[in-house]
Amino acid sequence: MNLIEAYRNIRAQSLKICEPLQIEDYVVQPALVASPPKWHLAHITWFFETFILKPYLKEYPVFNEHYGYLFNSYYETAGDRILRAKRGLLSRPTVQEIRAYRKHVDHYMEIFLNNENLAKDIQDLVVIGLNHEQQHQELLYMDIKYILGNNPLFPAYTEKPLLNPETHSKSQTTITIESGNYEIGYQGDGFCYDNEKAKHQVYLETYQIHPNLVTNGEYLKFIEAGGYHDFHFWHSDGWTWLHQDNIIAPKYWHLIEGQWYEYTLAGLHPLNLDAPVCHTSFYEASAYAEWLGKRLPTEAEWEVASDKFIWGICWEWTESAYLPYPRYQKPAGAIGEYNAKFMVNQKVLRGACVATPKNHSRKTYRNFFFPFDRWQFSGIRLVEK
Amino acid sequence: MNLIEAYRNIRAQSLKICEPLQIEDYVVQPALVASPPKWHLAHITWFFETFILKPYLKEYPVFNEHYGYLFNSYYETAGDRILRAKRGLLSRPTVQEIRAYRKHVDHYMEIFLNNENLAKDIQDLVVIGLNHEQQHQELLYMDIKYILGNNPLFPAYTEKPLLNPETHSKSQTTITIESGNYEIGYQGDGFCYDNEKAKHQVYLETYQIHPNLVTNGEYLKFIEAGGYHDFHFWHSDGWTWLHQDNIIAPKYWHLIEGQWYEYTLAGLHPLNLDAPVCHTSFYEASAYAEWLGKRLPTEAEWEVASDKFIWGICWEWTESAYLPYPRYQKPAGAIGEYNAKFMVNQKVLRGACVATPKNHSRKTYRNFFFPFDRWQFSGIRLVEK
Amino acid sequence: MNLIEAYRNIRAQSLKICEPLQIEDYVVQPALVASPPKWHLAHITWFFETFILKPYLKEYPVFNEHYGYLFNSYYETAGDRILRAKRGLLSRPTVQEIRAYRKHVDHYMEIFLNNENLAKDIQDLVVIGLNHEQQHQELLYMDIKYILGNNPLFPAYTEKPLLNPETHSKSQTTITIESGNYEIGYQGDGFCYDNEKAKHQVYLETYQIHPNLVTNGEYLKFIEAGGYHDFHFWHSDGWTWLHQDNIIAPKYWHLIEGQWYEYTLAGLHPLNLDAPVCHTSFYEASAYAEWLGKRLPTEAEWEVASDKFIWGICWEWTESAYLPYPRYQKPAGAIGEYNAKFMVNQKVLRGACVATPKNHSRKTYRNFFFPFDRWQFSGIRLVEK
Amino acid sequence: MNLIEAYRNIRAQSLKICEPLQIEDYVVQPALVASPPKWHLAHITWFFETFILKPYLKEYPVFNEHYGYLFNSYYETAGDRILRAKRGLLSRPTVQEIRAYRKHVDHYMEIFLNNENLAKDIQDLVVIGLNHEQQHQELLYMDIKYILGNNPLFPAYTEKPLLNPETHSKSQTTITIESGNYEIGYQGDGFCYDNEKAKHQVYLETYQIHPNLVTNGEYLKFIEAGGYHDFHFWHSDGWTWLHQDNIIAPKYWHLIEGQWYEYTLAGLHPLNLDAPVCHTSFYEASAYAEWLGKRLPTEAEWEVASDKFIWGICWEWTESAYLPYPRYQKPAGAIGEYNAKFMVNQKVLRGACVATPKNHSRKTYRNFFFPFDRWQFSGIRLVEK
Repeated sequence: MNLIEAYRNIRAQSLKICEPLQIEDYVVQPALVASPPKWHLAHITWFFETFILKPYLKEYPVFNEHYGYLFNSYYETAGDRILRAKRGLLSRPTVQEIRAYRKHVDHYMEIFLNNENLAKDIQDLVVIGLNHEQQHQELLYMDIKYILGNNPLFPAYTEKPLLNPETHSKSQTTITIESGNYEIGYQGDGFCYDNEKAKHQVYLETYQIHPNLVTNGEYLKFIEAGGYHDFHFWHSDGWTWLHQDNIIAPKYWHLIEGQWYEYTLAGLHPLNLDAPVCHTSFYEASAYAEWLGKRLPTEAEWEVASDKFIWGICWEWTESAYLPYPRYQKPAGAIGEYNAKFMVNQKVLRGACVATPKNHSRKTYRNFFFPFDRWQFSGIRLVEK
Repeated sequence: MNLIEAYRNIRAQSLKICEPLQIEDYVVQPALVASPPKWHLAHITWFFETFILKPYLKEYPVFNEHYGYLFNSYYETAGDRILRAKRGLLSRPTVQEIRAYRKHVDHYMEIFLNNENLAKDIQDLVVIGLNHEQQHQELLYMDIKYILGNNPLFPAYTEKPLLNPETHSKSQTTITIESGNYEIGYQGDGFCYDNEKAKHQVYLETYQIHPNLVTNGEYLKFIEAGGYHDFHFWHSDGWTWLHQDNIIAPKYWHLIEGQWYEYTLAGLHPLNLDAPVCHTSFYEASAYAEWLGKRLPTEAEWEVASDKFIWGICWEWTESAYLPYPRYQKPAGAIGEYNAKFMVNQKVLRGACVATPKNHSRKTYRNFFFPFDRWQFSGIRLVEK
Repeated sequence: MNLIEAYRNIRAQSLKICEPLQIEDYVVQPALVASPPKWHLAHITWFFETFILKPYLKEYPVFNEHYGYLFNSYYETAGDRILRAKRGLLSRPTVQEIRAYRKHVDHYMEIFLNNENLAKDIQDLVVIGLNHEQQHQELLYMDIKYILGNNPLFPAYTEKPLLNPETHSKSQTTITIESGNYEIGYQGDGFCYDNEKAKHQVYLETYQIHPNLVTNGEYLKFIEAGGYHDFHFWHSDGWTWLHQDNIIAPKYWHLIEGQWYEYTLAGLHPLNLDAPVCHTSFYEASAYAEWLGKRLPTEAEWEVASDKFIWGICWEWTESAYLPYPRYQKPAGAIGEYNAKFMVNQKVLRGACVATPKNHSRKTYRNFFFPFDRWQFSGIRLVEK
Repeated sequence: MNLIEAYRNIRAQSLKICEPLQIEDYVVQPALVASPPKWHLAHITWFFETFILKPYLKEYPVFNEHYGYLFNSYYETAGDRILRAKRGLLSRPTVQEIRAYRKHVDHYMEIFLNNENLAKDIQDLVVIGLNHEQQHQELLYMDIKYILGNNPLFPAYTEKPLLNPETHSKSQTTITIESGNYEIGYQGDGFCYDNEKAKHQVYLETYQIHPNLVTNGEYLKFIEAGGYHDFHFWHSDGWTWLHQDNIIAPKYWHLIEGQWYEYTLAGLHPLNLDAPVCHTSFYEASAYAEWLGKRLPTEAEWEVASDKFIWGICWEWTESAYLPYPRYQKPAGAIGEYNAKFMVNQKVLRGACVATPKNHSRKTYRNFFFPFDRWQFSGIRLVEK
């Protein structure tokens, strides 16, 4: 698929994800981390306008001079921006105006991409822009779920939950990887993020990793055994988090008259015991593992074993902190802010999830969240101790 | 005008105020105090449903059992409710659904009001509901101004500002009221709130009150004289508030490249020096008076003198704390929560403002806000020291 | 008693109050409002140094240039100062150094006061300094009680509680005051604060005031009747305060294995049912009155009736907000900050308490605290509705 | 040295560290992290009482039943405890009472340790208690520095600063370590913490590490080059921290009339340019390295190279997150809370510092702090990129 085709497909997909929404759903921000859908639609457009059209397309007419302030996410290089906490306080521009903004940028991007002599580094920038938009497509699912799942009316977005038992392997035989030096990290011609490089050696001790994710039913046993009330299983920071936020179960679980329900994108339904547990924080994933006398894999262990199990259902918490690989090079310019500045205080998640766009996953992909985050589709895979 | 006609007119007016809005404008809550317009439209409907239709109209079919939780404002008597801070996090019910809710309730209210034998105390309840809706009509103007004025794009709501020099008296001769006992408070057959009663005597010393409100131009001199940087003029709590919120001018004033602008409902415009100053807090009103060696009136002074000047342009801060009058009686039931429980920590404002519905003002009306509030249309009238 | 004798006596009394303390007790600040005793001892000394010795005693050698920053309380006129919240973070100067500071200032004050030609306005300033020190003597009792009463070991300061049934009138016959114009406020030759002036007329309706304070036993009935769990009796702000701070009883009450105890300056003891209830907030005083169908007096009602009952046991909450009297004049200079800038958001308390220094009370005295404050010795007197 | 002798020496050393203090210095807690010295003295005593005497010495008379609540630090296993933030609010027990507590426990520990048949695992517990006390000896230096350095009077604790140019290597030749598999972690008969085990292999790429720490003079160039105002060098979380806390230099640096000073335990002195920079956070250490185009070592790199340079002057930040080693086993019981529950969100520091007790350092020692912490003696060693 050539670049212009990829551009069209990926851009169209963002709008498609939003189709089931009401205008009102595009506007609200129920938590600091969950941006309004209309903000996402504008921000991923602003990315192309700011990093491609403004610097490289002569006579590009800027759509609205104020949009830079409104739709920059975190790029210090690209100037001042509205506080993240305030994205949900803005009724304007309207959804219709943002759609017009998208059309405007798409129009000029088509002109731009039709240029046959696009330099390789500019093509690469466009590819980053498309991968960036795909990341926001997953964020759209996450944030739409937050917006609707946070509403006492529990409105549905789809007819069928994304996560269900069919997505789930039943095998119980652990996979053994023998000790030795292995290589991890990306090397090849395709697209990857800077944080996946350089490919490098690690020494691993022998380990047994599970072929399947933990299910809701298995996790429920931890709850019923009082796991959320026994400090032994928890990190100190996790125990504090638990009490500050009154956490008693994974996000979107609701105990209603003695029965557990789960809000899914298809609405509120009784907990499906055979589906993989999802929307856990690192603290919960780690406490669950500790309770069972098991542990989470490191990201190297995960990557080395990943050809031997099915993945891509939930992002999988690892024990690894999000740190630079050996010989890591931060790219120059604003793109250098994409990954490097987040390499502290966060945990690596590996794999992909049901909301990840097709062709946007690979076994070297390093996702990262804070240990208390759980609005992403994050599940648990165990390693024997 | 009979009750059913009044009901129709007042209910229609609420929708009319919202006509210039985009759907997105109905949803957001830029500050704790400023509720989303769709919340107002639903809340004032919920009031009739909860206090009239449910208890008094047999076989009234409740529109949606969850709406009580969503649209109760502060009535403990009426059950649990969503936190005020979270009103702007709800995309559902949509504006369309809330309009349907209004129609449903209006339909049954018509049936109810057509009953020729309505008891007097129930008629009184309906009248309270209508006055309540009128209060929210003023709140709608206040909150719409907050929503649009808080947006970096400064969208306009109307073509012409509500406040302008024409609304403003030019007379400079102070009015003298001689010392003696006077009566204040409401006595009569018309509608009034419980807090306006009982009519009672007060002793006043001789005072001179100004016939006109302070203008933007006059207030600007206080700013230019460094009034916001000199603690002498400020209450201790006001000085703290000033620094915590980085206050340098009334709300909606913007200093842009050395020039003062004011956001009005007609958009951002250069400050109109001849219009009355508006959107000041009590702290600012009091500091301004102190700077001039004057003072604010007490509410009794205001009421006694009110026949002698024009009022109704801006709410006017008084020195008086919001307290019960002698022989004040809190009404029974939920209506008892309307006023009594707020009689601490707040200041009385007297008069009315350009956003107050016609026929919803009288000289005994006691409005009240916290001394730091200023999103209401509040101005300054002075008394000689 | 001449001025120099008064100076010696009052200064000595401050040290006497601290005698039962351990060095460690002088240092801590268990809450924003409660300053360390060593801070009080230094601050009241700084007052004489700053407002008398520095401006009026030639060649006065300043004890330590840094003390101004450390021991200024809230006088903007007198320069920068350490944040109130940080007073308890300072181990130096030590108690011994502060005692040396006191001696130094006392030495020069003696020299200064021995001057036979002291101007009247400077004598007045010294008198204010002495009244200021007496106010801090009461604060010392309040803060010492906070420091020791907040300690899980509940150490005692004295052998006998200050408050007990003997301090308490048993009469139950209410006192009736007929309607009419009355005069309140201070007029005379003795010392009074600016806020007690000017003497002025008020009109009062007929009222019946109780001759005695509410007792612990009477207040306990309110608790046992569920008063802290029924919103009907509470102001909205009081209800919020109750829940934020988990308030279930007056300050220093402890429910231990089903039995109520009260921490007094004599340690932790079973609640004395016949002693007056103390350490209530305005919110609690008001809710208690509401529960009984009674109300609190206004400050004018209190003052007019005060010759007819015993007072001076607990400060008595009034319904009145702390506002300037008619013709109130703020004094010039730093002394102008003494009262005026606090005339918002606070409630007037009248009378005096067991911790108030002898000769430091009069019926026109206007004490003031925030409605949520309750570390002062504050009780409840009722008026019939 | 036998156990009883070690016990005596180490216990005596804690008191010796506190000798220069005034009583008042033992009481205050200027920040959440910095406990009052009297708390430390009691807590390390409570450790022996709780984990040795109570369970293993028959008829041991508990000194005070309330001390468990007051002096437990973070052991959930050992019951409820006072909030860490409130340690500085307690004036009692006094310093004298805590000294009596120490004598009491020491008396019974002597009896206990004189038992010739002490089981090996109980001896090990005593050794942990002694290492624990040594850790608190370093904390005492840190917290005393915080208490005195936070005081506007800047009182001195010693005559000579602990850190100075003599502690500092001048060599500039980097040390090269060749790529390959190395072993890190503790193996042997001596004491080590659980987190230093198990000894395990790691693969390292070739690296050049600096033989010396960064000096104040070198770090000052970063400040003068505007390093604290250029986001390029900072982690996103670090940049936020910088602005929230208004950080412009390492802790204890003061810019006074254009000249840099440093508070040391010997008081406030002009910055010594040749001394190693100290009291930097991880964010600052990392930003400094980034500015120079260098990086921090990983903890494995540090340990493998550590025989080739001088260490022990400042704790040295590493890039490594504090995580369990392969085959890490959490000990049973309360001791299991010593390290394991902190293995998230923190960074490893290696080496030791001038305040570390003799014989309490080894190259496998893993210290850990949050990336924003800087009241510990933490410096910077660089690795070439």
